[in-house]
Amino acid sequence: MDVVEIVPTFEQYAFTFGGGAPLRRIQPGTALRLWSDDAFCGALRSVKDLSSEKVDLRYVNPQTGPFYVEGAEPGDTLALHLVALEPARDFGASATIPFFGGLTSTDRVVTLQDALPDTTWIYELDRAKNTVTFVAAHSELAVELPVEPMLGTVGVAPPGGEVRSSLVPERFGGNMDTPQMRAGTTCFLGVNVEGALFSIGDGHYRQGEGEACGTAVEGAMTTTLIVELVKGGAPAWPRLEDDTHWMTVGSSRPLEDAWRIGQAELVHWFGELYGLHPMDAYQLLSQITEVPIANVVDANYSAVVKARKSLLPSASAYGGLHAELRSRARSL
Amino acid sequence: MDVVEIVPTFEQYAFTFGGGAPLRRIQPGTALRLWSDDAFCGALRSVKDLSSEKVDLRYVNPQTGPFYVEGAEPGDTLALHLVALEPARDFGASATIPFFGGLTSTDRVVTLQDALPDTTWIYELDRAKNTVTFVAAHSELAVELPVEPMLGTVGVAPPGGEVRSSLVPERFGGNMDTPQMRAGTTCFLGVNVEGALFSIGDGHYRQGEGEACGTAVEGAMTTTLIVELVKGGAPAWPRLEDDTHWMTVGSSRPLEDAWRIGQAELVHWFGELYGLHPMDAYQLLSQITEVPIANVVDANYSAVVKARKSLLPSASAYGGLHAELRSRARSL
Amino acid sequence: MDVVEIVPTFEQYAFTFGGGAPLRRIQPGTALRLWSDDAFCGALRSVKDLSSEKVDLRYVNPQTGPFYVEGAEPGDTLALHLVALEPARDFGASATIPFFGGLTSTDRVVTLQDALPDTTWIYELDRAKNTVTFVAAHSELAVELPVEPMLGTVGVAPPGGEVRSSLVPERFGGNMDTPQMRAGTTCFLGVNVEGALFSIGDGHYRQGEGEACGTAVEGAMTTTLIVELVKGGAPAWPRLEDDTHWMTVGSSRPLEDAWRIGQAELVHWFGELYGLHPMDAYQLLSQITEVPIANVVDANYSAVVKARKSLLPSASAYGGLHAELRSRARSL
Amino acid sequence: MDVVEIVPTFEQYAFTFGGGAPLRRIQPGTALRLWSDDAFCGALRSVKDLSSEKVDLRYVNPQTGPFYVEGAEPGDTLALHLVALEPARDFGASATIPFFGGLTSTDRVVTLQDALPDTTWIYELDRAKNTVTFVAAHSELAVELPVEPMLGTVGVAPPGGEVRSSLVPERFGGNMDTPQMRAGTTCFLGVNVEGALFSIGDGHYRQGEGEACGTAVEGAMTTTLIVELVKGGAPAWPRLEDDTHWMTVGSSRPLEDAWRIGQAELVHWFGELYGLHPMDAYQLLSQITEVPIANVVDANYSAVVKARKSLLPSASAYGGLHAELRSRARSL
Repeated sequence: MDVVEIVPTFEQYAFTFGGGAPLRRIQPGTALRLWSDDAFCGALRSVKDLSSEKVDLRYVNPQTGPFYVEGAEPGDTLALHLVALEPARDFGASATIPFFGGLTSTDRVVTLQDALPDTTWIYELDRAKNTVTFVAAHSELAVELPVEPMLGTVGVAPPGGEVRSSLVPERFGGNMDTPQMRAGTTCFLGVNVEGALFSIGDGHYRQGEGEACGTAVEGAMTTTLIVELVKGGAPAWPRLEDDTHWMTVGSSRPLEDAWRIGQAELVHWFGELYGLHPMDAYQLLSQITEVPIANVVDANYSAVVKARKSLLPSASAYGGLHAELRSRARSL
Repeated sequence: MDVVEIVPTFEQYAFTFGGGAPLRRIQPGTALRLWSDDAFCGALRSVKDLSSEKVDLRYVNPQTGPFYVEGAEPGDTLALHLVALEPARDFGASATIPFFGGLTSTDRVVTLQDALPDTTWIYELDRAKNTVTFVAAHSELAVELPVEPMLGTVGVAPPGGEVRSSLVPERFGGNMDTPQMRAGTTCFLGVNVEGALFSIGDGHYRQGEGEACGTAVEGAMTTTLIVELVKGGAPAWPRLEDDTHWMTVGSSRPLEDAWRIGQAELVHWFGELYGLHPMDAYQLLSQITEVPIANVVDANYSAVVKARKSLLPSASAYGGLHAELRSRARSL
Repeated sequence: MDVVEIVPTFEQYAFTFGGGAPLRRIQPGTALRLWSDDAFCGALRSVKDLSSEKVDLRYVNPQTGPFYVEGAEPGDTLALHLVALEPARDFGASATIPFFGGLTSTDRVVTLQDALPDTTWIYELDRAKNTVTFVAAHSELAVELPVEPMLGTVGVAPPGGEVRSSLVPERFGGNMDTPQMRAGTTCFLGVNVEGALFSIGDGHYRQGEGEACGTAVEGAMTTTLIVELVKGGAPAWPRLEDDTHWMTVGSSRPLEDAWRIGQAELVHWFGELYGLHPMDAYQLLSQITEVPIANVVDANYSAVVKARKSLLPSASAYGGLHAELRSRARSL
Repeated sequence: MDVVEIVPTFEQYAFTFGGGAPLRRIQPGTALRLWSDDAFCGALRSVKDLSSEKVDLRYVNPQTGPFYVEGAEPGDTLALHLVALEPARDFGASATIPFFGGLTSTDRVVTLQDALPDTTWIYELDRAKNTVTFVAAHSELAVELPVEPMLGTVGVAPPGGEVRSSLVPERFGGNMDTPQMRAGTTCFLGVNVEGALFSIGDGHYRQGEGEACGTAVEGAMTTTLIVELVKGGAPAWPRLEDDTHWMTVGSSRPLEDAWRIGQAELVHWFGELYGLHPMDAYQLLSQITEVPIANVVDANYSAVVKARKSLLPSASAYGGLHAELRSRARSL
């Protein structure tokens, strides 16, 4: 199986979902190996590089894409199976951008207080150990942390002619910032426009749930993925599947509404998977869901709702596509 | 080490935090073995028992307590180490109480829609297999689920002369409804009144994160715990420790504020544990926290913020009390 | 008609709803003339008196009461008709208490930022002009503003044995902080306990909607009111009536839930007043309600939902009690 | 002064802010007389026309525009002065669209409950009396209500290449749904793209604050307005001025964040108008603002924050442009 390799130039970066010309047209079934820049467009390379000086907030969270998937029509389901995520630089960067993050006032949670100190942390990558190292900036501590690569942002073009910033998570996916978006996961997204026009970006070498300070260990990433198309069956909100869990992602404000979206979407999915009445799915999921918060910092907040397959009778979604993609991935 | 056994009568049940006379006065260091009724006061015993007919909503979530801890003064820290939780009946019950729960309008999220169907599910307990069985009420499915006992409610009397319903989670603990409140966990609560006046209840044979439908697999429980007192050091919000994680619990509305409380409390705790500046703790925790939602159904919503000890240098809180209590628990 | 005058001593101040012994037992129909201290217990008398130094946050928002109304039983409706509100000192005070207010992080909306400057503003009262004067503290401006006296806090004891801080607005009334609570208004509250146990306090010489900085022009107040009792008919949430409007007050978090509560309560009230189906009341009110925010700073936020009587056919609530009380007030 | 009249065809309707070619290029100073269709594109003309059958939700809230204003550049301030709003049909329509509105679950506030009854109300317009008549659909009542025409939607193209649905209120204005957007009001919007690309629509013959059921008395409208351009000075959020008030509009979720945005924007505006330090503006506005909720039903909620000019020293914004436009309007 061939793998199409793409390394975009800065001019090719996409900063929106929708609105841009396709970077490439591909057939369903294609495997891609995509380089993506970090959320800062690589502007933070030293602890002396402060976000307020080096980062142009009009050009953040660059996406690699969009890709036009031949045959994709509104109402179809796009499946993106993440095969491998590999750090593409030797360091990751994180920063407390003024008035951005979860424990600061923001342009939405407006107060009259001063901003927190604009600080940059550089996490050196040790490829042998597969670690990144936190080094305190205002005190004394260094901690090696395992690399756990993920993509903050995976999405398709929105419906209704909208064009949305790559910073926003929504029905169309986007900047969900969940650690679940990692190698081994298949992401199902409803197609809204001809060709789907998906893109990916915002690699994180690791991220805590919530992405509290607003930025993860941001790093350029090389992502290998397989693209598939299911005719029809578009889910209302992003669905994820890996070998162990059925998952949905809701994104809105306040955070309880993001959760409600995800929990209800999983109720509906359980209706499809197990023939359950919504009240029974509601009940069963009340006793088994895991609900890790994804982000509490973006334009919408995101919550993931998960059900562990091992607790449940066997079932398959989208014709067993996830298992098939896992198999195909092994032969790449 | 002796264990004091207490099985309260219905008349002894407490339905508030604060406001009641102590059930018993105990010395710090005491081990207790407490029976607690389920959140319905045992009113739901068959799928024909509907909550709207059988449950008196003025008397729900009964607590066993309060206990007056000798020597406890405002500003002190009460440590409750959960040694064992054992189902005390052969079934658990769950119900969709009209206008209560996460995927229904409520007395707070008010709409003009009709209530969801009032339904009761009974989960038979198989002690040999250590499972409870979900049986669908409106469709066809039965699923055996592992028993994972937890306490929905652990709290002390609030400050300022307040008396609060046992349904509310707050600074003083209360109805946090997190699966983390299980055997092996130590819960640290700030003392607000002489004697602390703690109580426990709301046993769940298992519960999903979020407690989506408003009720878990509710069951009478026998809880073995050890009570300790640390002079001073009262945390602003509940802190939990087990062998693997440092944890905090925030409770408020909207849900992002519950998270903010928990995340900031863990930032402050990391200042104590590792000497970290708040900005550095904010950064480090942004990359490592796990944030399972606890409940999105109670009078306040609750979120748990966790940091895995194995990622961090060794540290000890409250003089290593958790480890010591684990040790004492083994000799019970 | 006699008027009972009461000026409490500091020791008689109530700081909770529920939990205290009655200050006085009164018969329905009684007129009271009550002195209440300001929310700071009079601690701020000069711009040099800073809240962080002078105000003991355990003793704020003192209430005059509670009053035991003979014959009041749970399920009854307490009517409090405000006849006159007169400033009882020659100045009012306002302050930006650290981490309290609407444009600052708080103990709920937690951030890691520094507090805003703790500042006190003193508003001198000119009784002849009926004005208070704003004088800028950090810049140059003085503005005379009309006195528009109101009570921030009017409430009864909560149900379920709860005792709640006088800082909280809830179903039982409490710290709603709406400028609508002024002379000429009748407030209807559901009775939860024998005797109702109402109290009042938190006089404001004037307040903007939202009470943005957390404190109004706080001032000691002399309030004349008439107390009446309606058997049965307890509203779920506070209802207000004056000569021009039907009003409800909802209190919760987030603010949209406070609004939902108020809007739905007015839908239900319109069912009683005009025999309207809920869908028709929902529709009609969608076209006529005025919705001034009351507070976005207290433990719950409050929104007022109003319908102008002059737009509507004539109707009467509680047997025309408001009009009757207006009449009685004129003869005091 | 000439007035340019425009009546768009259906094909010319805009359903987004940004993304469309200009309908017309105009010079600053131009007066326009614009016909706009109602939010349903005229699909509801009888109480038998149900929204679920007649309204295509992909084509709602049509805008008349966009207009390219010669010389407008990012950072400039567009001033739109509303001269006159005249109902352009003899009836208005309102409806409870399934899962849309404030007292129902929605696609964001998700529950598992059934939708409210899909109902349409037609309000006949009496031009002589200047009234529209509410007629109950599920019960018996008819009420004549004064016509108070307003525009639900006024906005410019967003920044960052975004294209947003005309249903969304945001920094760029849009679907704010405030009754303040009426004849006599000047709306100041920050320009984000060359030409500003503003449009208007969503006429309401009247609307209650909050727009509770999700739709006002929706009606085709003829709007006369004057367009002006101020170089520089772009406000962060929409500002309104009429003869009596300074006003700002914040839009976000939850509703308290919409309020925070508006309140802080007015604090900053008062810094410009009166030279006040932010803390002093915060204090002064805390005592005088009026805060009518605009909408609690759209993709973002909106709150208006107002300060009455008569309480304040005289001041002028944007070189006294509002007064000048009022004067010009009289000569149209």
